[in-house]
Parts: sequence; structure tokens; C-alpha cells
Amino acid sequence: MTVTVSAPSEARPPALARTGDLVLPALRSAVAHLDDTSRSQVSYHLGWTDLDGNAVPGAGGKGIRPTLAVLSALAGGGPAEQGVPGAVAVELVHNFSLLHDDLMDGDTERRHRRTVWAVWGAPSAILAGDALLALAQEVLLDAASPHRGDAARLLAQATRALVRGQVLDLAFERRDDVTVAECLDMAAGKTGALLSASAAIGAVLAGAPASVVDALRTFGAELGLAFQLVDDVLGIWGDPAVTGKPVFSDLRARKKSLPVAHVLAGGGVAGRELAAWLADRGDADEASQRRIAELVEAAGGREWASAEATRRLAVAERALDPARLTPGPLGELVAVARYVVAREV
Amino acid sequence: MTVTVSAPSEARPPALARTGDLVLPALRSAVAHLDDTSRSQVSYHLGWTDLDGNAVPGAGGKGIRPTLAVLSALAGGGPAEQGVPGAVAVELVHNFSLLHDDLMDGDTERRHRRTVWAVWGAPSAILAGDALLALAQEVLLDAASPHRGDAARLLAQATRALVRGQVLDLAFERRDDVTVAECLDMAAGKTGALLSASAAIGAVLAGAPASVVDALRTFGAELGLAFQLVDDVLGIWGDPAVTGKPVFSDLRARKKSLPVAHVLAGGGVAGRELAAWLADRGDADEASQRRIAELVEAAGGREWASAEATRRLAVAERALDPARLTPGPLGELVAVARYVVAREV
Repeated sequence: MTVTVSAPSEARPPALARTGDLVLPALRSAVAHLDDTSRSQVSYHLGWTDLDGNAVPGAGGKGIRPTLAVLSALAGGGPAEQGVPGAVAVELVHNFSLLHDDLMDGDTERRHRRTVWAVWGAPSAILAGDALLALAQEVLLDAASPHRGDAARLLAQATRALVRGQVLDLAFERRDDVTVAECLDMAAGKTGALLSASAAIGAVLAGAPASVVDALRTFGAELGLAFQLVDDVLGIWGDPAVTGKPVFSDLRARKKSLPVAHVLAGGGVAGRELAAWLADRGDADEASQRRIAELVEAAGGREWASAEATRRLAVAERALDPARLTPGPLGELVAVARYVVAREV
Repeated sequence: MTVTVSAPSEARPPALARTGDLVLPALRSAVAHLDDTSRSQVSYHLGWTDLDGNAVPGAGGKGIRPTLAVLSALAGGGPAEQGVPGAVAVELVHNFSLLHDDLMDGDTERRHRRTVWAVWGAPSAILAGDALLALAQEVLLDAASPHRGDAARLLAQATRALVRGQVLDLAFERRDDVTVAECLDMAAGKTGALLSASAAIGAVLAGAPASVVDALRTFGAELGLAFQLVDDVLGIWGDPAVTGKPVFSDLRARKKSLPVAHVLAGGGVAGRELAAWLADRGDADEASQRRIAELVEAAGGREWASAEATRRLAVAERALDPARLTPGPLGELVAVARYVVAREV
């Protein structure tokens, strides 16, 4: 049985590099406004500098969220530039959540580098995250668009939904009985809320009609669930060389991810064995992680999660139909969504 | 030598109770929007419920910041109600900072009650704080005022200045040589920024002219410095029965508060003895705290801080002159400012 996953099957959409080049100067300019201490920690966290503060060549801002925000402005009938404050703001909120989550989860590494709290201590990660959250709102409220207030409200709502998702995630760690619906609800907050806001914020800034904004929000929310399903598959069966995480990483802390919740819900011999294993406290050793990965795969958890990701992607794409977007932005939004989901399923 | 301070010398201004009654329902309604977990933790933190979730009778929202925000709307020519979303937002940001600061400072008690992180753990305090910060922006951006975006930008700027103040505060803990100017800069962020925003946000929501908003901002910023000077005097010489903190509490962790920085800057025998004591690491015992409190007082640190607080209060009041406010709101703003500074100097 194969337990690692192969390389991405979709080519990297050109929109990612193009919007990265557009957004990066604005992101750098926003980060330059931070106090000296937070700025150097955030620059390190973003991969722009090493621990000594030296610039890292080729470091980017080519994330999915800023790309969705810029494409969203185009989809809303505005120029790409109108989406840039939204792109910067969602990237700042995303990194606020990474700084706080790494601390709360006790993760000492991210993308093969030590995390901010592991290097500078917990207060630094808390304060740098707090500063990014406030800065995200400032960037949006300084935008030239007359719709900046609506964009800022969308982002604040998404931030609170994101926090709610993290609250649920932590609560699930202390429970043995998490349903698939609860897992999806948590993922809708933790991953879906900010992707939904990213996919709509540019259109809001461009003053697009509510029907377009709503279609983009639904597209982003469904894409977020697909994204999380893929992440959860990678969290068990991903290749450490590709993911940058240890093999079976989600099983180490007995995480109730979506494939696990699916098998749990199915009951039977596999469900009961899985439930007993989850009820055990403490870190699992690698042999037991491998056994559980095989058990979840044999019981259909992996296949279900992959199929559900594909289904959610289709739902996301169909959600765009009523918006009647022009072919250019529509094609690019779909290409980015397919790339994200095809990452490595 | 007396080292405790007597009761407040100014009567409680009626505006505090009146605005508390106006703001509390809106604050409760905002907090009701939080996820279940954060809501119960925040309700406890605000003193509305006990640890079992039972309502605490008479628990209020009678803070200085919401009162300033409501008076600021009146000063800006609007009705008091126009200041309410601003009042709720500044109170939420204030409590975001308390939740995170208690965790970072390792404080297990606030106002004779256990702190949120001490009861529910660090992640709860981080997430409840994050949720309050996002909620503050939502409340403002949901306001009916056409100037809500400007108010939200003012609050985001103040939040970032507040975070910067806390970054400096933590950095000072690891240094032996903090100047009075650096201490004042830190206080301008940690205390001044949000009081400044509180004093101006109602006027912004009411659409007051820039001259009025600027005068109120300066008033609040100077009041913030006066407030911090008083707090620092209380942090060394305050009566535990009044402050709710241990005697000499700021000396326990060898904090470089303003009276301490003043004596340090003066040099001489007292300055050198103080510098040597500050350079020592680890908690100070009560005998050495008492000795240092007497040393700082004998060297004029207490008298200077009290006089400087009074001077800053006068600067704050004079800052209002160019705004030509109507006598009612002007009188109430001044009464609240004097009450804050007279608290217990």
C-alpha cells in the first residue's frame, strides 16, 4: 500500500506569479509600518529575511489568498490594482493566524524554519500577530476605494469566523467524538472564512453588485473546504519532502481530521479500533501512526476525502455561474482553484 | 514615611454612571455575537459572570474609555447615541489588550479574580483577545454613521500603537538603562493611544471638523500620560486595599516605571544604588522592595511623577481650547479627566 502522495498534477497558473509581483511591493510597504521589533520578526516569518536579518533572495508573496483577492477585483469589473489593498490585508490576516496558531499548537517549525515563538518567545508571536491584525484593517481603510469600509467589515467578520474555527479545533482535541459535520464546520471557519473573504474582497473594493460578491464568497468558502480536505489527506499521507511536515504528521497528536472523522462515523470494526486509538492520550509512536494511516485508508477515509474535495471544487465552480463573470477572470479563478485542489491528491 | 496613598479626592463624575448605562446594553449585545467558548470567557473576564457562568449582579461597563467616547460624540455636536459604537469598540480593544497582557506578563489575578489564561489556559486568552479585536472593528463598521470607516481607521491605528507600547514594555524588562523619554514613549503607546482614540472616536462618528477631532486626540493622549504617571505612583505606593494589587507591586519584578526612570536619570548616590538594584535579576523580596520605594521617594521620584501627572492634566485641558466646545460636554470631559488623575495621588 502506498502511503505517500505524488507531485502536483496541475501546472502552476500564471496568475499566481503575476499577482505576486503586483502585491509584494504593497505588502512590503505595509510591513515597513510595523514597529522595529515586530517588523524584523514578521519579515523573518514571511521568509524575507533569515534569523540575522539578512535578505533572502527570491522570497515572495505568491500566496493563494492575495491572488484570489486580485482576481476578485478583476471579476468585479475593477482594475487589478483595486484588489491590492484587499490582497495585502488577507495575507496579513493569514499570517496573524499562523503566528498565533504555531504558538497555540506548540509547533516549533514551519516550512523547515523555526517558528517566531520558538525563536523569540511567546509574547513576540502574540504581539507580532496582534500588530498584523490591526495593520490589515489599516491597509484596507487607507484604500482609495469608496467601498473600503465594506471590505474592512467583510475582513473583520472573516477574522472572527477564523478565530471561532481555531476555538473549535482546540476543543476537538479534548474530545473523542467529533462528527464529520463538526469537522466541516470547524474547517469552514478555520480555512473557509478567509478564503471566502479573499475571493470576494477585491470585488467589494471594485464596487461590484451583491450578486457577484455573494457568488465569489460562496466560491471561496467551498474552495476552502476542498482545500482543507486536501490538507487533511496530505496531513496523513503527504510526502514529507513535499509538505515540509513529518510523515503522518496529523496522526502524531491523534488529530480528528476529516478522513479520520469519516471512518469514525462509519463505525464497524475499523471505526471502533480508530475510536479506541483516539481515546488514548499522549503522542502516538510511528508504528502506530502507520497502522492507523493504513486502517483509515482501508476503511475508505482517504478516498472519501479526495472525492469530497473534488466534489466541493465542482460546487465552488458552479457557484460562480450566476455572477456571469467575463471569461478572463473566470478562467483564472477556476485555474487557481483547480491548482489548489490538485496540489497533491 | 508614609508609603500608602489615601482615597480619591475628587467625587465620581455623574457622566461615568450615565454613559455606563447607555453603553452596557450595546456592549452586551456585541459580546453575545462571540462563539460560545469566547463569550463565556469574556463574560467572566468583564465581571459579568462568575466561573460557573452565573450572572454577577451589578456588574458594569462603567469604564473611562467608553465614557470618553460618548462625551466625545457630544463634544463633536452629535447625540450621545452616536458615540456608543465607538464606546463599545474602545472597551473591546481595551479588554483584548488586558487578556493578552495578563498572559504575557504571567499575571494570575486581576481585580481579585483569576485571569482568563490562569483559568482556561493560554490559547483561550489568545483567541478570546483575537476575537475581541475583530469584534471591535465589526461593531464600528456596522455603525450607522457615514464616518464609520474613519472611526475604524482611528481605532486600528490606536491598536497598533498600543501593541507597539507593549513591545517596548517587554523590551525594557531586558534592559537596565531606560530613559524617562523612552518610558514616556512607551506609555504614549500602551496607555495614551487608546485613551486618545477614545476621546476622539465619538467626534469622528459625529462628523466633527478636524480641528475638534485633533484637539480631542491631544486631550486624550496627554490624559493617557497623566493616567500612566498616576498608575506608576500607585504601582509602588498604592494601598493594596484600593488598587487590588500587592504592595510595591511594580517593584517586585524591578519594573522601570516612570518614577524609577526619573531617579535613574538623576544619577547621584540614589541613582547608582537604584541602577545596581535594577541590574539584579529575579524577583525582589519585600524588604528590598520597601527599601527601594523609600529610596525612590526620598530621591524625588514620587513627587516628580505626581507633579508631572498634574502638569499633563493641565496640558490636556488646554488642548481643548481651540476646539471651542459647548460648556456641557467640555465640563464633563474635564471632570472625567480630573477624576482619573485625582484617583489617588
